[in-house]
Amino acid sequence: MRGEAMRTAVAGLHAELVRYNLVVWTAGNVSGRVPGEDLFVIKPSGVSYDELTPENMVVCDLDGNLVEGEHSPSSDTAAHAYVYRNMPEVGGVVHTHSTYASAWAARGEAIPCVLTAMADEFGGEIPLGPFALIGDDSIGQGIVETLKGHRSKAVLMQNHGVFSIGKDPKSAVKAAVMCEDVARTVHVARQLGDPLPIAQDDIDRLYDRYQNVYGQRSPR
Amino acid sequence: MRGEAMRTAVAGLHAELVRYNLVVWTAGNVSGRVPGEDLFVIKPSGVSYDELTPENMVVCDLDGNLVEGEHSPSSDTAAHAYVYRNMPEVGGVVHTHSTYASAWAARGEAIPCVLTAMADEFGGEIPLGPFALIGDDSIGQGIVETLKGHRSKAVLMQNHGVFSIGKDPKSAVKAAVMCEDVARTVHVARQLGDPLPIAQDDIDRLYDRYQNVYGQRSPR
Amino acid sequence: MRGEAMRTAVAGLHAELVRYNLVVWTAGNVSGRVPGEDLFVIKPSGVSYDELTPENMVVCDLDGNLVEGEHSPSSDTAAHAYVYRNMPEVGGVVHTHSTYASAWAARGEAIPCVLTAMADEFGGEIPLGPFALIGDDSIGQGIVETLKGHRSKAVLMQNHGVFSIGKDPKSAVKAAVMCEDVARTVHVARQLGDPLPIAQDDIDRLYDRYQNVYGQRSPR
Amino acid sequence: MRGEAMRTAVAGLHAELVRYNLVVWTAGNVSGRVPGEDLFVIKPSGVSYDELTPENMVVCDLDGNLVEGEHSPSSDTAAHAYVYRNMPEVGGVVHTHSTYASAWAARGEAIPCVLTAMADEFGGEIPLGPFALIGDDSIGQGIVETLKGHRSKAVLMQNHGVFSIGKDPKSAVKAAVMCEDVARTVHVARQLGDPLPIAQDDIDRLYDRYQNVYGQRSPR
Repeated sequence: MRGEAMRTAVAGLHAELVRYNLVVWTAGNVSGRVPGEDLFVIKPSGVSYDELTPENMVVCDLDGNLVEGEHSPSSDTAAHAYVYRNMPEVGGVVHTHSTYASAWAARGEAIPCVLTAMADEFGGEIPLGPFALIGDDSIGQGIVETLKGHRSKAVLMQNHGVFSIGKDPKSAVKAAVMCEDVARTVHVARQLGDPLPIAQDDIDRLYDRYQNVYGQRSPR
Repeated sequence: MRGEAMRTAVAGLHAELVRYNLVVWTAGNVSGRVPGEDLFVIKPSGVSYDELTPENMVVCDLDGNLVEGEHSPSSDTAAHAYVYRNMPEVGGVVHTHSTYASAWAARGEAIPCVLTAMADEFGGEIPLGPFALIGDDSIGQGIVETLKGHRSKAVLMQNHGVFSIGKDPKSAVKAAVMCEDVARTVHVARQLGDPLPIAQDDIDRLYDRYQNVYGQRSPR
Repeated sequence: MRGEAMRTAVAGLHAELVRYNLVVWTAGNVSGRVPGEDLFVIKPSGVSYDELTPENMVVCDLDGNLVEGEHSPSSDTAAHAYVYRNMPEVGGVVHTHSTYASAWAARGEAIPCVLTAMADEFGGEIPLGPFALIGDDSIGQGIVETLKGHRSKAVLMQNHGVFSIGKDPKSAVKAAVMCEDVARTVHVARQLGDPLPIAQDDIDRLYDRYQNVYGQRSPR
Repeated sequence: MRGEAMRTAVAGLHAELVRYNLVVWTAGNVSGRVPGEDLFVIKPSGVSYDELTPENMVVCDLDGNLVEGEHSPSSDTAAHAYVYRNMPEVGGVVHTHSTYASAWAARGEAIPCVLTAMADEFGGEIPLGPFALIGDDSIGQGIVETLKGHRSKAVLMQNHGVFSIGKDPKSAVKAAVMCEDVARTVHVARQLGDPLPIAQDDIDRLYDRYQNVYGQRSPR
């Protein structure tokens, strides 16, 4: 089997989507680039989270074509593939319809950075991507155009949901989890008034520290 | 025992209602038509979800009369039976009082289609059905009048809750799960402003693709 | 040990408070009258829900005095005792600070009956009781004055939380679970507008049917 | 190993943060002072809650320097250390970004005391602390300036999250759990109107009773 270690990682990480209530039924997926190969591992389409194993993961090439697997790849495979083709630094992609992030996306609003945890993880707002239909490269293009050169590792695709990226699938899952967490907290804050802004200088300091100091001391 | 495979399926699917927090105490139920017979299997009345087994499921005829079972059938049996009598293409029915969907129902509002996942699964808005009292065919008639010829597989019964249908009970449970998920996301979106509409053409394209392309590639 | 069967029932029913997220830490309690004796069984004070057993339950007389038990009885014992002294038809009492019901209580508002499930279980609105301090019979008096002769089996004590009653502790726990469920659904409905009223005649019909027809067919 | 009993207590108490949904990923931490020594035990940085054991806890001195441990201490260690240095009566500190409390913090609002459970546990409002950046003693100073001489055992740090204190880590965890619980209930109450105030005299009576009478009768 190709990409065995990545199959195990990707299969297991779906449990985090379930644990943090980011997904219902089969509507979310994780993928991971196979190191050193032009391949990625992704969730099979329509298989429930309880039934995911390293063996039933699907391997695709960077055009999203099935390379190895008994099931069809996730219906979101084209978007994942586009990201891997166009962002070589990305090693993991996650897609969810998590409730609060998707609510911001339904209104077409970016999430403003009013929490120190957002400054740490996202370095500022979580941006809005375009409305795009499934079926061609529109979604992938929207993700890449929004996130390329942006600090944020997550994008709210209008009327749709969230895509997050990372250096590996675990990092992308963390971004998906944190995105929903801050989407919910900022939503709740806004329900009763206006959250206080954080000065751009402070956002920059927090982001620098978290990405550098924190990262060096703690590899996980 | 009659309808053994369907007893097993129906008993097991109630766990999905619990998993997704669609029900409290004993207030929701799943039924499934027995293939090739004028019978359906339904939850027994007042039995807790922990105690459901294939053996204690109840079998009814299409008028809702008890055919086999030690317990009384669910108090919602007449509504299920009416659906099976009048919609021969339906193989599964689910009823819940799930929170967000029931809140739309309490205000008497359909859920507008502002999420691509709604376009996929429901093909547009989730419609409102009439206020109807339990005790005769009023609820069943309200379900059938609202859903017959409608893309949506779920209806919000005014001041009451949700009924969903499907080609089999698993499909009806999926519709109940997705109905609450989109009811919650659209509610949250609306709390802070107006969600952006999706053009009817785009809704149509998404629905067609999901029901056809997606379905063909992924049988589950 | 006195009241053995009731000790087992009361200890076990606390798990339902946990399951439905009605309580945090040790802040809610169930009690049950010992049939044929002027005694009731109640949760020990300050013991976590994980550690409750039939053996560490506490037995009190109807004045709330400790009769049997190694721990002190719940700090809410006086209120439970007052209910048992003054409402001989009551066999179980539950107290929680469940979130949505307590929010209505904090505003000093009864929950209007806009859901058929509320009409079934409570026969109308869930009423508001007075603000009362712990330490004497004030809370018990407020509960009894509000619920005596009222259809509702639950009362929202102002700025405090919920007390519910039933013919036995399971029935009181069901009322506590349903109270939070409808408190949440009606809250969510009201967030985006006014729920539609249900006519008093229809409320009466639903209540009569649920208490009579439904009850006769299904003893549990 | 130093502080063995405290390692076990601190490692185990993190499960309460998970149980009550106060934390996601690795973003919250518990610490406990080692009795009779100028040391405290704290969560290692970046280790998931599933993997915490007494052995992988970290021991620091009261300046926050690592004394014993294979991992780096939590990135919030300096704030914990500052509290232990400046509040000798404190034996446990907890930090979370729990949703509702952090939402009040994002708006820069204290939580008003409109629930008897708040009067019991916090003796009044839960106060707001200053905006402070990580990296020096600013956060610790903000906590101590806000809580020293205040009845409340929890502080909302502006745009950040919650710190809570107690005579031991269990007591600090209880305060963190109760803080989120009342933050959520008061938020929900305020969504539909103004909660009723509780008179200061009544708050004082409730607080006195809970800290004294309740405490004496029930040591846990």
